[in-house]
Amino acid sequence: MGMSFMVLVVTVSWFWSISTTCVLAAKQAYISPQQENQKLRFDQNGEFKILQVADMHYANGKNTLCLDVLPSQNISCSDLNTTAFIQRMILAEKPNLIVFTGDNIFGYDSSDSAKSMDAAFAPAVASNIPWVAVLGNHDQEGSLSREGVMKHIVGMKNTLSKLNPPEVRIIDGFGNYNLEVGGVQGTEFENKSVLNLYFLDSGDYSKVPTIPGYDWIKPSQQLWFKRTSAELRKVYIKGLVPQKEAAPGLAYFHIPLPEYANFDSSNFTGVKIEQDGNNGISSASVNSGFFTTLVEAGDVKAVFTGHDHINDFCGKLMDIQLCYAGGFGYHAYGKAGWSRRARVVVASLEKTDKGSWGGVKSIKSWKRLDDQQLTGIDGEVLWSKSFRENNGANQIGGN
Amino acid sequence: MGMSFMVLVVTVSWFWSISTTCVLAAKQAYISPQQENQKLRFDQNGEFKILQVADMHYANGKNTLCLDVLPSQNISCSDLNTTAFIQRMILAEKPNLIVFTGDNIFGYDSSDSAKSMDAAFAPAVASNIPWVAVLGNHDQEGSLSREGVMKHIVGMKNTLSKLNPPEVRIIDGFGNYNLEVGGVQGTEFENKSVLNLYFLDSGDYSKVPTIPGYDWIKPSQQLWFKRTSAELRKVYIKGLVPQKEAAPGLAYFHIPLPEYANFDSSNFTGVKIEQDGNNGISSASVNSGFFTTLVEAGDVKAVFTGHDHINDFCGKLMDIQLCYAGGFGYHAYGKAGWSRRARVVVASLEKTDKGSWGGVKSIKSWKRLDDQQLTGIDGEVLWSKSFRENNGANQIGGN
Repeated sequence: MGMSFMVLVVTVSWFWSISTTCVLAAKQAYISPQQENQKLRFDQNGEFKILQVADMHYANGKNTLCLDVLPSQNISCSDLNTTAFIQRMILAEKPNLIVFTGDNIFGYDSSDSAKSMDAAFAPAVASNIPWVAVLGNHDQEGSLSREGVMKHIVGMKNTLSKLNPPEVRIIDGFGNYNLEVGGVQGTEFENKSVLNLYFLDSGDYSKVPTIPGYDWIKPSQQLWFKRTSAELRKVYIKGLVPQKEAAPGLAYFHIPLPEYANFDSSNFTGVKIEQDGNNGISSASVNSGFFTTLVEAGDVKAVFTGHDHINDFCGKLMDIQLCYAGGFGYHAYGKAGWSRRARVVVASLEKTDKGSWGGVKSIKSWKRLDDQQLTGIDGEVLWSKSFRENNGANQIGGN
Repeated sequence: MGMSFMVLVVTVSWFWSISTTCVLAAKQAYISPQQENQKLRFDQNGEFKILQVADMHYANGKNTLCLDVLPSQNISCSDLNTTAFIQRMILAEKPNLIVFTGDNIFGYDSSDSAKSMDAAFAPAVASNIPWVAVLGNHDQEGSLSREGVMKHIVGMKNTLSKLNPPEVRIIDGFGNYNLEVGGVQGTEFENKSVLNLYFLDSGDYSKVPTIPGYDWIKPSQQLWFKRTSAELRKVYIKGLVPQKEAAPGLAYFHIPLPEYANFDSSNFTGVKIEQDGNNGISSASVNSGFFTTLVEAGDVKAVFTGHDHINDFCGKLMDIQLCYAGGFGYHAYGKAGWSRRARVVVASLEKTDKGSWGGVKSIKSWKRLDDQQLTGIDGEVLWSKSFRENNGANQIGGN
């Protein structure tokens, strides 16, 4: 693993400058979600940063021991190491939003799901940074159902998580919602959503006897996504400073899509050391078409999942980046000696002709390892307005 | 081709007994769709038979010449040969329903889409047998749009085709609808739909620049299908003679699903001699998840498409038969010396304890070739209540 991993490290200078010694108190510009009608927006530097935390697998705190760590780490290693890692990440990155992509708690080992969640999300709550969560396949395995877990999350402090879109009568799962990120205050883009975030419930396990394995994103969810995306596009290309194309979007959920299996080390950045599933990808065993729906909608430039703790790559397929965060939690399987990690994404705005901030120009990402330096690795540009590709017209067959 | 083809012919005696010399007038028991509120139902022999006609590619009648026929057939071969083949099939099989699965007309070569349709469907209209149609990728290439073509079809005589489900506000495509087939009149099942037929618009060509090739069935259509299937199940397992499971369903549309590429001659009945596409299957280049949706819904036992004229197989995947009809029309590409053909499906009811007719017991299929004897080939049981498989419980992974 070590060799292929090192080869793939891309040294990009723009993420090394972040000092891990900054303190959160320095982030005075932050506007709490309670203010300004919970509107997320880009800061005066034209940036919006998201910290993704995948697979905390939190249970009962200090009594819940670590899995797959080195013998030297094993002494007194517990859920509290997961907590400490979040705290350090928040201090180091000072994100504008924290996204927890499921398996936030490990229900089987939790004595009380609500308490486990309160402890797991505590560093996010305490940071006063807006945070959101979606469900994984283990969150409901404790004292609360999936609905109960999501309802608890929605009721927590500083979260922008939602149970489900209120305008949809019936939708599969719990925790399907979207958030709009506004342009910089005082600019022409301040009332436009220049970055759109989609959060979906990718379910837990198949309920269909003839389909083994994990669950998938259903047509009802895809239809909601499509309509939401179309509506956001419609608004973005109209009004003040009408734009030619939809604002870029990012999608977050737990279980990877079957299309994640299309990559190998020749065309991704990061590592894939999982052995199970299809080519190391534990997606559903069937394809429910969400990748097609994403390509068709056209606005989502990158998808971020967890689930496979020892995969952490991003690979691009049909102009969409399919990314893992890599496992974050210490009470989750991992690989001894392979650091727990988190993914950071930052979207940067372009300057308008008038010297003001406009729409999104680029989306970059990197990961940080839970070592002494919180080492940053795999910095890469996921999407860039100027570099965007056009693969041309449709091919028409003869049938 | 010839050899593998012959090897796969399954000689099943139950379809050889049909005399091709019967005349339609003998079918006195038929109830026209205008009667009895257009309700389709099983006949007093406990059977319901469907004739599938795929890819007529009809244009301007006798002036539109045949493609890919033997030199000996070429003289005066035209669209009228397609017409004659339908007439012979109707006489031979006396179906309860005729289903045209798209590319009914070849728009490019048609001087008037409405006239082409009137001529193409004329034998079905004249037979007084209920008939339906869905759209292929060529139907709209003449003087009418897809909506215009489907509206024209819906307005024709004796058709049960519908433009779209009235209860759905927005749905992709034109010609998404379902039909219920009632049990035998005078039995406890007379007011139950014992067989459900779904018709969908699989589109024409991708409208997404980054996705080449053919179109696909969208989330809006899948959601409509899921809800319709769930509603039909709910009704079937309640009321008079409540049933344990949903009534079986059959789905008809034009473009095959990507999952059709999962077969080879070792696990299908029929032939695959197409060379293009993915493993000889010209599906969309992306997977939009309708197969998953079908498996999840659970009631559809077989899917019937056209599009690939020189594939005519059925193969079973996850308890669903994926079938082609094989090309029917003479102004469509084919293979000289390889007969144009049609697929027949017959559903048979089981006897109840009281000696009356109950729900569906089995679904069989065969094809007939347009040769002198209308030779029947590839007879097979597609689904049987008693032989139904259960692949057991879900596998649960470790992530």
